[in-house]
Amino acid sequence: MTDFIEIIKQLKFNKDGLIPAVAQDIDSGEVVMVAYMNEESLIKTLKGKKACYYSRSRQKLWTKGENSGNFQEVKQLLIDCDADTILLKIKQHGGACHEGYFSCFFRKINDKGEIEIIREKIFDKNKIYKQNLLSLKRK
Amino acid sequence: MTDFIEIIKQLKFNKDGLIPAVAQDIDSGEVVMVAYMNEESLIKTLKGKKACYYSRSRQKLWTKGENSGNFQEVKQLLIDCDADTILLKIKQHGGACHEGYFSCFFRKINDKGEIEIIREKIFDKNKIYKQNLLSLKRK
Repeated sequence: MTDFIEIIKQLKFNKDGLIPAVAQDIDSGEVVMVAYMNEESLIKTLKGKKACYYSRSRQKLWTKGENSGNFQEVKQLLIDCDADTILLKIKQHGGACHEGYFSCFFRKINDKGEIEIIREKIFDKNKIYKQNLLSLKRK
Repeated sequence: MTDFIEIIKQLKFNKDGLIPAVAQDIDSGEVVMVAYMNEESLIKTLKGKKACYYSRSRQKLWTKGENSGNFQEVKQLLIDCDADTILLKIKQHGGACHEGYFSCFFRKINDKGEIEIIREKIFDKNKIYKQNLLSLKRK
């Protein structure tokens, strides 16, 4: 297996060493989230075929679904013309949003400039995170 | 018409005063590009219903299509759970990519870590930009 070093050299990471990654569910076509990758998380994603990001708040690698079980299987990884953004075509297991929605984009700005929720929740965030943390503790 | 000041206060712009915006074609579902907005370009987009970004390289507002004619009609503007990313559902006129493709994401990274072009060009970039610049000069 390649070590993916050559491809890393061709991408433009920002001054914090990060590149934005858009995750789009391959079945529904829904854009489910945008997060950031550093070199290490991108290589891990390319090798393991599970989306792995860099958490800016926790300052560490973050495999999507590691707490919730809502993994993202990576089917295709695309780059844009400027090589400074990634588009992941993924199969979203469960929902992408920690608030309980399939997509993090569950709110729109209406013509009055107000925020409106336009999606239904698909899971109870308290249940799923608790359940999975318990099962992790048991391991 | 609202001045959209209240909604601006609820969004999280980064330290450079920018917020990333993903543009998704509403008919095909294709993610066509990711660019950045500052407060002014976001308000202009909300008011005018044509996607307007902030060009980081040119350091000025940039209404997509102003040179190429390939405008983006904004049909819906969504925000994510963290209020730090925008998703624009747009009708893409012509192609979004200055290289001549419908989407800027016309290349994938294959399993060997190589870049592969996976889309066909839909316009000749030399023609379309020249044509439109000429027509602008005539005005």
